[in-house]
Amino acid sequence: MNRPPIETDALVIGAGPVGLFQVFQLGLLGIQSHVVDSLPYPGGQCIELYPDKPIYDIPGTPRCTGRELTARLLKQVAPFAPPLHLSQVVTTLAKHPDGRFELQTSRGTTFVAKTIFIAAGVGAFAPRRLRIEGLDKYESASPNAPAQLFYALPSPADFAHKHVVIVGGDDTALRAVLQLADSGQTKSITLVHRRDVYQAAPELCAQVKTRIESAAVTFKVGQVTGFVEHNQRLTAASITDADGDTRSLRLDALVVLLGVSPKLGPVADWGLDMARKQVAVNTAEFSTSVPGIFAVGDINTYPGKKKLILCGFHEAALAAFGAANIVFPGQSTPLQYTTTSPRLHKLLGVDQSA
Amino acid sequence: MNRPPIETDALVIGAGPVGLFQVFQLGLLGIQSHVVDSLPYPGGQCIELYPDKPIYDIPGTPRCTGRELTARLLKQVAPFAPPLHLSQVVTTLAKHPDGRFELQTSRGTTFVAKTIFIAAGVGAFAPRRLRIEGLDKYESASPNAPAQLFYALPSPADFAHKHVVIVGGDDTALRAVLQLADSGQTKSITLVHRRDVYQAAPELCAQVKTRIESAAVTFKVGQVTGFVEHNQRLTAASITDADGDTRSLRLDALVVLLGVSPKLGPVADWGLDMARKQVAVNTAEFSTSVPGIFAVGDINTYPGKKKLILCGFHEAALAAFGAANIVFPGQSTPLQYTTTSPRLHKLLGVDQSA
Repeated sequence: MNRPPIETDALVIGAGPVGLFQVFQLGLLGIQSHVVDSLPYPGGQCIELYPDKPIYDIPGTPRCTGRELTARLLKQVAPFAPPLHLSQVVTTLAKHPDGRFELQTSRGTTFVAKTIFIAAGVGAFAPRRLRIEGLDKYESASPNAPAQLFYALPSPADFAHKHVVIVGGDDTALRAVLQLADSGQTKSITLVHRRDVYQAAPELCAQVKTRIESAAVTFKVGQVTGFVEHNQRLTAASITDADGDTRSLRLDALVVLLGVSPKLGPVADWGLDMARKQVAVNTAEFSTSVPGIFAVGDINTYPGKKKLILCGFHEAALAAFGAANIVFPGQSTPLQYTTTSPRLHKLLGVDQSA
Repeated sequence: MNRPPIETDALVIGAGPVGLFQVFQLGLLGIQSHVVDSLPYPGGQCIELYPDKPIYDIPGTPRCTGRELTARLLKQVAPFAPPLHLSQVVTTLAKHPDGRFELQTSRGTTFVAKTIFIAAGVGAFAPRRLRIEGLDKYESASPNAPAQLFYALPSPADFAHKHVVIVGGDDTALRAVLQLADSGQTKSITLVHRRDVYQAAPELCAQVKTRIESAAVTFKVGQVTGFVEHNQRLTAASITDADGDTRSLRLDALVVLLGVSPKLGPVADWGLDMARKQVAVNTAEFSTSVPGIFAVGDINTYPGKKKLILCGFHEAALAAFGAANIVFPGQSTPLQYTTTSPRLHKLLGVDQSA
C-alpha cells in the first residue's frame, strides 16, 4: 500500500466511452493520462448495462453494440497507450502544496496529477447491497472468523464443507450457482430469488434447472429480510416469500449477487459546485468550479445538457484544450487536424503517405 | 420556376457531415427535414477537400476517409430519407406572415420552413472566378451571341469548330482538356496554367502530356490578366507569364477551372448576430439571434468553439431539441435512447428483437 505516487499530467476518472475519448483528445494535444475505473474492464455503462444491445446514434456508426463501441474506442486510443487502473475507485482527493492534486484509490494507488477529468458517468458501479442492520460486519474476516457475507463469488475452495446461500437471479448469480455446484465441495447450495423466473440467459436457466432437479441445488422464492446469529457468527438468513411468510434458512456463507448500481461516491464531497446531483460545468472548456478539475459526460450538467455519448465526446474535446492551458502554461494550443497535421500523424503513429 | 413551395418542419442548409447528422437528430425527434447544398453531391468539405484522406478523430471510428464518413452518415440517416436539393444555394430568406420562413434557391426551389439549420461549414462552394473587370458579361448568352466564359465544361459539342482556352491545372481542368481533345470537334485547345507542373493525378498528367506532344493540345505557362474584345465579342485572352511578359491568345471560348472556394453567401445578410464572420449561437440549443434559425458546425461560434466535426455532431443534437420546442409547441420532448426506446426503433426501422 506504500508504492510511490504516479505523477501524471492528467488523471481520467472513468473508462467509459467518454473517459476513453478524453484520453484520445488529451493525447492529440500531447498530454499523457492515466485512467481509473471501478469495473475490472474498460467500457463503463456500455459494457455493464448494454454490452450486446445496438446503439444507433454514434455519429458515423449506424449501428454498434456497447461492446463494439468500447473496442473501437480502445483501438482509437491505442496510440496513446493509457495505463488503466481498474477495479478501484478514487477515495480521496487533496490539494498538493505545489498546486497539483493528490488522489488515492481503494487499492492504494496514489496519483499526483496536474489536471483531473471526472468522466464517471452515473457514478462508480458498486454491488447492490442488502440493507439489513447489523449484517455488514459479517463481510469482514478476522483471524479466527472468516468472512460470511460476500458481494462477489470467492474461490469455491473457500466454501468447502459449507452451507452456502446465493441470493440473485441474473446471469452472474446463476453462473455462481453452477460454478459452486460443479466444484462438488460445498455441503449444500441454496439459490434464493424473489421470483420463480430468472433474468438470465436461457441456457443458464436450463442448466440451473437441471441442478435443482438432481437436488444438487435447492431453490427458494423469497427475499432476505433478516438473519440469525449465534456467538457472533451468522447461522441463518430469514427468507420472506410473496405471501409474507418468513422462514429461516441455515447457512455458513451468504453470497449476494443482486447486480450493480452506480454510486457517485466521494466526488460528491470534493466541494465542486453541483446542480441536481450533477457536477456543474461551463460550456467553454467543461471545467468545474475548482480550477484544474473538469467533468465530462453523463456526470456533468449545463444549460441544454443531454445525456448522450456523442455530447460527451464534444465535451472531452473542449476540456482537453482547457487542460492544455494548465499543463502548458503560457503557451497557446492551436487546433490541428488529424487529416492534415504531420505532428498529429506522428503522435498517432500513422504513415502520412499511406 | 413557379413550382409550388415545399412545406417542411426543418430546412437544413448544407449536406456536409454535420448537416447530415442534423437530419438524423431531427428525425429521432420526429421532425422531417429537407436539405439544400451547393455541391452536386452530399458530403461538403469531406468530399470536396479530402475525399480520400484519412480522418482519425471521429469518435469510435479510428480511421476513415472523407468519402467513407459521408457514406456512413448517409447510411445512418437513410431511415429518415431526407430529400436532398443539390447544386443550388439559398438566395433569399423572408419571414412568412404565419411566422415561418420562406427561402428560395438559385434553382428556383421555394421552401416554407418552421425552422432553419445553417450547417454551411465554411460556406457554399463556388467556382473560383477570374476577377477581371468587364469579363463577367461573357458568361451570359443572348439569342444571337452564345456565352463565351465558362466556369464548368459544357458539352464538347458546344465547342465544335472553336478555339478553346482552358485555364487551370487540377484534375478537373486536365479531365476537361482530355474530354475536349478526344471529342475531336474543336479547332484548337490551349491549356493555360500558372506553372509548368500540374496539381493533378499522375495518370491525368501523363495523358495530357501525350496530347501536347502530338500537338492536339497547346500548353502555355501564365495567368489570364486581361482580354481583348471586338464587336462585343471576346476574341483573345491576355496571358502574363512569370517574367511579366504578356501575350494575346486568340479564343472563341474561355473555360476557367481554378477549383472551388467557399463563400458564406447570403447568410451574411440575414441579420443574424455575427462574430468574426461566424454566426453567433448560444450553447444550450445552438440557436442564432433570430428565433427558429439554428447554426451548427464550422459556421457558428461561441466561447470555446473548436472547428471539429465531432463538435458539430453535439451541436446538431442540442439544436434538434431546440427545434422541437418550435415544431411541437407546448410539448415537452423527453430524451430517449436508441438502445432502448421502442419508439426510436420503429423510426429507425430496426427490429427490436434483432
